Amino acid sequence: MQNFELTILGCSSATPTSTRNPTAQLLNIAERFFLIDCGEATQIQLRRFKIKFQRISHVFISHLHGDHYLGLIGLVSSMHLLGRTNDLHLYCPPELQEIIELQFKYSQSHLKYTIIYHPHKYISNDLIFEDAKVEVRTILLNHRIPCCGFLFIEKPRPASISKEIIKLYQIPVEQIVAIKKGADFITIEGELIPNSKLVTGKPKPRRYAYCSDTSYDERIIECIEGVDLLYHEATFMNDMLPRANETYHTTALQAGTIAQKAHVKQLMIGHYSARYKDLQPLLEEAQSVFNNTILSVEGKSIVIGNPSY
Amino acid sequence: MQNFELTILGCSSATPTSTRNPTAQLLNIAERFFLIDCGEATQIQLRRFKIKFQRISHVFISHLHGDHYLGLIGLVSSMHLLGRTNDLHLYCPPELQEIIELQFKYSQSHLKYTIIYHPHKYISNDLIFEDAKVEVRTILLNHRIPCCGFLFIEKPRPASISKEIIKLYQIPVEQIVAIKKGADFITIEGELIPNSKLVTGKPKPRRYAYCSDTSYDERIIECIEGVDLLYHEATFMNDMLPRANETYHTTALQAGTIAQKAHVKQLMIGHYSARYKDLQPLLEEAQSVFNNTILSVEGKSIVIGNPSY
Repeated sequence: MQNFELTILGCSSATPTSTRNPTAQLLNIAERFFLIDCGEATQIQLRRFKIKFQRISHVFISHLHGDHYLGLIGLVSSMHLLGRTNDLHLYCPPELQEIIELQFKYSQSHLKYTIIYHPHKYISNDLIFEDAKVEVRTILLNHRIPCCGFLFIEKPRPASISKEIIKLYQIPVEQIVAIKKGADFITIEGELIPNSKLVTGKPKPRRYAYCSDTSYDERIIECIEGVDLLYHEATFMNDMLPRANETYHTTALQAGTIAQKAHVKQLMIGHYSARYKDLQPLLEEAQSVFNNTILSVEGKSIVIGNPSY
Repeated sequence: MQNFELTILGCSSATPTSTRNPTAQLLNIAERFFLIDCGEATQIQLRRFKIKFQRISHVFISHLHGDHYLGLIGLVSSMHLLGRTNDLHLYCPPELQEIIELQFKYSQSHLKYTIIYHPHKYISNDLIFEDAKVEVRTILLNHRIPCCGFLFIEKPRPASISKEIIKLYQIPVEQIVAIKKGADFITIEGELIPNSKLVTGKPKPRRYAYCSDTSYDERIIECIEGVDLLYHEATFMNDMLPRANETYHTTALQAGTIAQKAHVKQLMIGHYSARYKDLQPLLEEAQSVFNNTILSVEGKSIVIGNPSY
């Protein structure tokens, strides 16, 4: 099965703590390395966890609050200083280009590679990336400033035929592709073998939804319905609900509620306020509504679709 | 004796390593906390070393290469989020104001305190800060883009008179201030006691010079002559001299040479290239010319004017 693995680089909200960095995640789908948000010190976290950051070619920035993008200039500068020549694709708020170019103007930096900007349209379900194995779509979030989440979707993969089945029915090589795509097979004796008896389970394409930062907003449910993993911010405990509303953030209870209503398989919470030293109460509050909840923890990786973490 | 203590927060050059952060230093002179440069993750380093960053009211930015200022937006944002109301003075390249204001415009941040900008004039010996205890002057450096170093100078402190001397000569209270400032004293018997016999050694004002980033440039000697501590960048070993010249940086040998020619008391080197895992060869190269050289090491503090480190 191809890789579909998420590594947490930062799980803090706006003010980092001595143990938690601002938001950043690395997603590896079939050896495509997607960086999702890039808070201050992301390049330091990448080094700390021994991730080769030149393998990153696609960066997704949700919005222009500093805890989600301030590490980007340092990272793209280091990529340049370390000899990068490959294009870097940036899926981001349109204004980020102006911010980056202004700073490069004054530092007199001239990158040896090209940054290709893909500005957000701020709509849901916008197909912003696609290749043979993956597609990425937007999830419109509800924050104090324009903000997009992202849905990462594996492309459907062909079913597989075992060597034993090929031998048993004496299937010629030239028919295998068609059978993988769903064709039946007629043996030399004229017997029809239905496709379901030939192929082993076509693995269901997995999906990862990234939702930070946002108020509780049920309009996202249609985008995230049934995903294998939902990352949803849970900045506060529910006793801070007025503060969550005021700052367009979510409580752990609300994150659990949205996970339950969207029938996701697993929920990961994060973007914790610096006020919480111990994260266990946040976890338990989300679990009180949606049991299969885990905490995002820096340096930890999760194979998406795999129940063990 | 009043505090004059330097703490290293980052000692790396442009690309940080897994163990070294970009440039930042905290200088405490008589409980004034001066932040000198503010590379990415400075706020994280301040927390790591348990420094209360709301006590910082003066930030000195040498130039607009990212490894010297990219941590500033995050730091000033955190100061705001944590309730700061006191002014923050920023001594910096004039363009930094535009960079900061652009980002606050798009993040819709409205600080609860005021940033007061003091733009560099790019001349040496410009008095940019002064109060009862300290003055700060500029040192024009020679870098790829406009760059200023900083000279931190204690104000001369009055000499002290011991209780024994006051008793011995029966000095009236109202004459003590004048004597501390240099006056002689005439006893009731009419004997003139010269000032030198009355006061104990007036402590010599200490000076700290910060010089990063720069080519080897002897024009700085007149600014840094005889300082108690010179911080001078030493990005490369001398076998990389052509690379140092090309990038407007200095080698460890050159840093030692400038320290020796300027008759400084102690040299601290830093701004190490990421290529050097072991810093001992850089130290030894500088020491081959100027023996009293030390390495800048993150988290380490040095009392300036104190020979032990």
